[in-house]
Amino acid sequence: MQNIVIIGTGNVAEHLSKALFNRGLNIMQIFGRDLQKAQQLANKVKAVAINDIANLNQSADLYLLCVTDSALTEIINKITFQPNLVAHTAGSVSVNMLNKFDNYGVFYPLQTFTKDRDLRIDNVPFCIDANTDDNLKKLHSIASKISDKVFNMNDEKREKCHLAAVFACNFVNHFYSVATDILQNENIPFDILSPLIQETANKAIDNNPNKSQTGPAIRGDKQTMEKHINQLDEDLKVLYNCVSESIIKQHCKR
Amino acid sequence: MQNIVIIGTGNVAEHLSKALFNRGLNIMQIFGRDLQKAQQLANKVKAVAINDIANLNQSADLYLLCVTDSALTEIINKITFQPNLVAHTAGSVSVNMLNKFDNYGVFYPLQTFTKDRDLRIDNVPFCIDANTDDNLKKLHSIASKISDKVFNMNDEKREKCHLAAVFACNFVNHFYSVATDILQNENIPFDILSPLIQETANKAIDNNPNKSQTGPAIRGDKQTMEKHINQLDEDLKVLYNCVSESIIKQHCKR
Repeated sequence: MQNIVIIGTGNVAEHLSKALFNRGLNIMQIFGRDLQKAQQLANKVKAVAINDIANLNQSADLYLLCVTDSALTEIINKITFQPNLVAHTAGSVSVNMLNKFDNYGVFYPLQTFTKDRDLRIDNVPFCIDANTDDNLKKLHSIASKISDKVFNMNDEKREKCHLAAVFACNFVNHFYSVATDILQNENIPFDILSPLIQETANKAIDNNPNKSQTGPAIRGDKQTMEKHINQLDEDLKVLYNCVSESIIKQHCKR
Repeated sequence: MQNIVIIGTGNVAEHLSKALFNRGLNIMQIFGRDLQKAQQLANKVKAVAINDIANLNQSADLYLLCVTDSALTEIINKITFQPNLVAHTAGSVSVNMLNKFDNYGVFYPLQTFTKDRDLRIDNVPFCIDANTDDNLKKLHSIASKISDKVFNMNDEKREKCHLAAVFACNFVNHFYSVATDILQNENIPFDILSPLIQETANKAIDNNPNKSQTGPAIRGDKQTMEKHINQLDEDLKVLYNCVSESIIKQHCKR
């Protein structure tokens, strides 16, 4: 049985620890600065909660760092022993961030995780990297226990995935938000857009989204675009124009 | 049985005529400037294809104008008789565009239609408007035959739906496109993003997207944002900054 320590109590920590636990791996400890939060997660995966890095069990097979990019440095500095294997879970942080250790790698799940929201983890692509072939194999083997989609990827490729994810997830969600605001002002329920959101996503998944761009910008329908702009406040006018220009520019480049 | 004439041969014409035909309504004629295209669609719904407005059968119960906004005026000008009822299918065109007729309205499906791509039409919200209560009832009754979601909406509300749809569909698809380009340059298959795209859409449908915004912009994670910007070309840098600024601004307003 493999013993894993989870550093962090956020969404990634929650989903990864549950997934690993459900696949029969042993979660030894959950570390969180807030002991109560750590205890809550620890209870779910039969682990021990700690809030002091000095209390880390030093014999675990893997230490998974599931903290924000900005908290990583502090955590790394505080780990003063040589772990068997340590990996971070960040999309845009170099694997070399961990090079003070002998055995290290990356274990990046390309997904948006939400607390108390279940999702199929076997479907989540994991981007794996490590400082040696042996460590890569180990991380690959653990990722394969919870997901069918495990990819070996260097820093550069993984960063591109993360960047693409910002467009396809964070930026997309922002537009869902803007759409909600537009509808809310008219007391139109947001779920009127649900079939459109679903179909737009499905269409992109089934076909190349470059080929299915529709709407006034790509048609060059200036009259409709003007009508739209007139309905928006100053900030959203800027956004509308900026995205419309980008649609036209990217279309011309292809 | 109700007799319907479809003006247009594009995606909306295709999906609406098939849906109406499948629900037992009689599609009398399909008009298209390109007779061959009109014939292709007419064959699918047992209709007669025409390419001259002068040949319109004048006894139909409803004439559905499924043409681009810019082609509407020309078509309207060419219809010189008084139709029993005529409706356009555009999101951003006033119902009054048709006020030279006695009986008119709007029959707007809030969905993105793609040729040869099936979708559940019963799930598609229809936004209905008309110049009289009687005409509104007629259009409502026909829309209800193909969809469970029929809404009466005036110009202003419908235009807001269309504007929201541009954000939630066209703009979203553009970001899928940009993400594809980013991945393609690294030879990473686009489908690595499929679970993320699906989950982002599902999450927005299940919860208010305002509450689930994640990513570097909303976290104020300038280091990651800078890394991202450094990986983009000049045009995409502008887009990235513009959307990130908008995420921060809209967040502050809420």
